[in-house]
Amino acid sequence: MDRLTIVKVGGKVVEDSQSLNELLDQFKKISGYKLLIHGGGTIATEIAGKLGIKTKMVEGRRITNTAMLDVVTMVYGGLVNKKVVAGLQARNCNALGLTGADLGLILAKKREVKDIDYGFVGDVEDVSSRELRLLIEENVIPVIAPITHDGNGQLLNTNADTIAAEIASELASFYSVYLFYCFEKKGVLLDQNDESSLIYELDSTLLQKYKNEGIISAGMIPKLDNGFSAKRKGVKEVLITKAQNIATGRGTRLV
Amino acid sequence: MDRLTIVKVGGKVVEDSQSLNELLDQFKKISGYKLLIHGGGTIATEIAGKLGIKTKMVEGRRITNTAMLDVVTMVYGGLVNKKVVAGLQARNCNALGLTGADLGLILAKKREVKDIDYGFVGDVEDVSSRELRLLIEENVIPVIAPITHDGNGQLLNTNADTIAAEIASELASFYSVYLFYCFEKKGVLLDQNDESSLIYELDSTLLQKYKNEGIISAGMIPKLDNGFSAKRKGVKEVLITKAQNIATGRGTRLV
Repeated sequence: MDRLTIVKVGGKVVEDSQSLNELLDQFKKISGYKLLIHGGGTIATEIAGKLGIKTKMVEGRRITNTAMLDVVTMVYGGLVNKKVVAGLQARNCNALGLTGADLGLILAKKREVKDIDYGFVGDVEDVSSRELRLLIEENVIPVIAPITHDGNGQLLNTNADTIAAEIASELASFYSVYLFYCFEKKGVLLDQNDESSLIYELDSTLLQKYKNEGIISAGMIPKLDNGFSAKRKGVKEVLITKAQNIATGRGTRLV
Repeated sequence: MDRLTIVKVGGKVVEDSQSLNELLDQFKKISGYKLLIHGGGTIATEIAGKLGIKTKMVEGRRITNTAMLDVVTMVYGGLVNKKVVAGLQARNCNALGLTGADLGLILAKKREVKDIDYGFVGDVEDVSSRELRLLIEENVIPVIAPITHDGNGQLLNTNADTIAAEIASELASFYSVYLFYCFEKKGVLLDQNDESSLIYELDSTLLQKYKNEGIISAGMIPKLDNGFSAKRKGVKEVLITKAQNIATGRGTRLV
């Protein structure tokens, strides 16, 4: 099978033009088919604030009312996505910006209200990759913003780490998929303040141990859970790393 | 050649959810391949206002500084485009939202500063339709927002009427193209206040006569110039009409 590298980058990388350019320079170096998934980070919060819309986060998740949904649709699907696309085009990478609504790529379900009403937040139900694969094989580079739809015209705000895992799992039947989760650190660290304490390989037993010991931060856990889930679904390699290291493949490898 | 219908709708149609739904219901009825191009209208002005960015228009064109470019990228490329895409998906139309940067579709050049500095406004230089045609033939419905790029990473705000004419002209070599310019009236009227004064057919001689007599409004002239240009470049049919009439094909036909 052909190799496909999926890179997920957080909001912090894309919101600053210098770090975005560094990311795109590294991303360009990856050989074979590739796909980029981006978050939106603090730009959405900032623009919402200017528009008089208050940001409420619960356990790292954005509460998304109608006004906030418009903001994330604008910021993730428009501003951030098109800047990334134009930056890749300038590097002779034939990028195509997408949300989960485009090409009916990602169908999601509005999260049920239990203890918390997250509003227009979607949980992925199905990934439909036919046209996406057609494009990948034409050397098009999909750039995916974390917005999905419910098939009835409703857009939904969806976690970018989850989207990355779902897309990677779907495509694992067609390609040899390498999934890179990028954030600010070199990988999963034993000591958050010491970049030399990088964990090179992490398996689920070790993960449980580190979770119990409180070594792994709360913010990292959903990323790792998504990564292990993708690995179980046939993704060849899952790596937690720094955007600057995607071309070299260093970081924490999930095994 | 297969028939391809290109519909260009103005901002007013897409900014209100009722008129947007009516448009999409009509658009769904068009048989054969189809493509939608939308403007952004007053939403960009409204959101810019809330963000403290002043809108300046010169001869109906938006002066686009860096902050305003971010706004139109968000609003046209994000908010409006994705609402249209989700609305079409809900109607079983496999829509794909695009700007001119996506797939390297529309290359433009920043307008030179002469009397007026329009800022980041682009004039179309080249349309590259290879991947677009591949998608159209997979029954994908492209939904195009009026943003282009210069190939060096710079996004540019570009007139949607012009984009419609340029896309139609490019695709006229591959399809039998029907281009519909939609606005609030039934077509070009002899008397703006009388919908029964519709001009059924308009040729360039008649256009010149009406221009001289001041019968055709200033706002309509660029639309007609774009339409006649597309006609000269092989577009089979150009019609000025109301969004409600796109399925029936009534309006002013350019001949």
